Amino acid sequence: MRFERDNIRKMKGYAPGEQLNESGVTKLNTNENPYPPSPAVAAVLRELDAERLRRYPPPLADGIREAAAELHGLTPEHVMATNGGDELLRLVLTTFVEPEETVVITRPSYSLYPVLTQIHGCRLREIDLEGDWSLPETFIEELQESEAKLCILVNPHAPSGLLLGADYLERLARAFSGLLLVDEAYVDFVEPSLGYDAVSLVRKLDNVLLLRTLSKGYSLAGLRVGYGLGDPGLISPMLSKTRDSYNTDLLAQELATAALHDQVYARECWSRVRDSRETLSLRLKGMGFSIAPSQSNFLLCEVPDGNDAKELQLALKKRKVLVRYFDQERLRDKLRISIGSEAENRVLVDTLKELLA
Amino acid sequence: MRFERDNIRKMKGYAPGEQLNESGVTKLNTNENPYPPSPAVAAVLRELDAERLRRYPPPLADGIREAAAELHGLTPEHVMATNGGDELLRLVLTTFVEPEETVVITRPSYSLYPVLTQIHGCRLREIDLEGDWSLPETFIEELQESEAKLCILVNPHAPSGLLLGADYLERLARAFSGLLLVDEAYVDFVEPSLGYDAVSLVRKLDNVLLLRTLSKGYSLAGLRVGYGLGDPGLISPMLSKTRDSYNTDLLAQELATAALHDQVYARECWSRVRDSRETLSLRLKGMGFSIAPSQSNFLLCEVPDGNDAKELQLALKKRKVLVRYFDQERLRDKLRISIGSEAENRVLVDTLKELLA
Repeated sequence: MRFERDNIRKMKGYAPGEQLNESGVTKLNTNENPYPPSPAVAAVLRELDAERLRRYPPPLADGIREAAAELHGLTPEHVMATNGGDELLRLVLTTFVEPEETVVITRPSYSLYPVLTQIHGCRLREIDLEGDWSLPETFIEELQESEAKLCILVNPHAPSGLLLGADYLERLARAFSGLLLVDEAYVDFVEPSLGYDAVSLVRKLDNVLLLRTLSKGYSLAGLRVGYGLGDPGLISPMLSKTRDSYNTDLLAQELATAALHDQVYARECWSRVRDSRETLSLRLKGMGFSIAPSQSNFLLCEVPDGNDAKELQLALKKRKVLVRYFDQERLRDKLRISIGSEAENRVLVDTLKELLA
Repeated sequence: MRFERDNIRKMKGYAPGEQLNESGVTKLNTNENPYPPSPAVAAVLRELDAERLRRYPPPLADGIREAAAELHGLTPEHVMATNGGDELLRLVLTTFVEPEETVVITRPSYSLYPVLTQIHGCRLREIDLEGDWSLPETFIEELQESEAKLCILVNPHAPSGLLLGADYLERLARAFSGLLLVDEAYVDFVEPSLGYDAVSLVRKLDNVLLLRTLSKGYSLAGLRVGYGLGDPGLISPMLSKTRDSYNTDLLAQELATAALHDQVYARECWSRVRDSRETLSLRLKGMGFSIAPSQSNFLLCEVPDGNDAKELQLALKKRKVLVRYFDQERLRDKLRISIGSEAENRVLVDTLKELLA
């Protein structure tokens, strides 16, 4: 006998990128940071007394909330800590979207969004991006007409890396009667001189939520910590009602807080990733790849004419270089390649040279 | 403007027990284990290289699944690891219960269950326990008549500590067309000579799920690790579809696996807690408390005649002794007291003697 609900029975689960932990693998398929976490994180880990794990952790993760509030010039009431950014995505649906309501996303986008709407059993409207991955000019009108309760935009965009301006996001949020969730998983890698700042929207609009994660920018994918920023009216029901009572553990709380406090180290890593992004992009372009301009820690690369992206991905994998291939419309001729360390990027380029020769 | 769904707006959140971390506090209010986690946990923590946190953790928490399977004589396909037991409770609703379907629980029971049904927006039927906290004789018929999709029983019962036999659970599961979730959060403290074993039901019935947690039995409340045991047909949709993709972090996985492997240490702690339970129960009875027989790591204590439970709890708190009071029908004349170390139990008894004198 099968007991699942109909919507669960019919759906497929989210397929995460492969997590191969063999040695000698150049892993550029799941957008991890090539640099280790801050030495401050290692220090907290070394000094933590296991005896403290006996007790429940602070239920609201006050340390993370205070550190994030200070970092962004907000109050702890604007912040909630989550078990990875994924938890915030789920909680936004659970808390704000009725099963018969509509969620708008772009196509393509982070492939977890449709999975979450299927689990929640709500409606999904996908709006196609333009050829250069920008939003269509009619996006705001289409959003209004959809009568959606929620719009999720990942910015910088995944899998292209394209950045929308905060002024556009503000215009969109003001024109929209629902909730705008901006998934800023990759925002730490945006070029600072662009002056992008969506946190200012949180201060002036009551329908904007931002998702942040420590997985990429702070090299802590293994720790599962993210946080949401938003008007206290949006944060409060998730914090006090729909969240699992102790959603982040003690180690995650203390290590994440240490990471957030060490901004000097984090910014140095982001700057190195940005520099490598420019170098790698130039090299790959020189080999015939077409690459969308990226403000993220990955590049979406259309393979040179005469090559098959899927075959190239498999050939790279045989040589222990992992990159991501999406079996999806408009992406089947492309590879998404995470920015690695300079040494990893060289291995990638050298291996590609062999394979394309 | 408020954006929450109606069901969320109307509900109250779960109120966890107070997590006071002042020094000098005797904390007997949230059923934590009085002994530290296994030295094996401390060893893994000390040796863990922070650099490993850079990468995503094994998505399915293979280490925990294999350790639990071995421990219980099941296969990893019978096991899923969760971010605390709470996550499993939520996932069972998400995966198996339609919003219009009914969940049956007992009254009283773990106060999180009604909160989860309110979040999920499904129906709740609460069946009153008898005066001695046993199930009414008509329970199985009432369950059948309710046409419920899910029945959640906490066994040993919270907040009384009463244990149902596995033979009764089997009879119930066989008579029930829905899913039986047995929350075994406190099962490690059951007297072994009773021969209680619900894991055998998982092997022969496809509608039984067991919840286990490392919070109590393994002194790891701060780590947030639980697991579910069930027929692979029940585990699979939660594991591959409804769970957040990386629901347990690397540290939690490695430390929990070490804890599960050190059964010798765990059993020694459980035995000490059981011994203290008997001693404390006798002492409190000697002071006029009426106490339900408990197979758990807490005692539900009706205060002696002429005393007010709420006032007593507050008076204890003033003296830095925390116990739990539930402002709920049939519980307002009682305190739930966690079994502490021998020293903590003595502080409790001495303080009560002063207050009752």
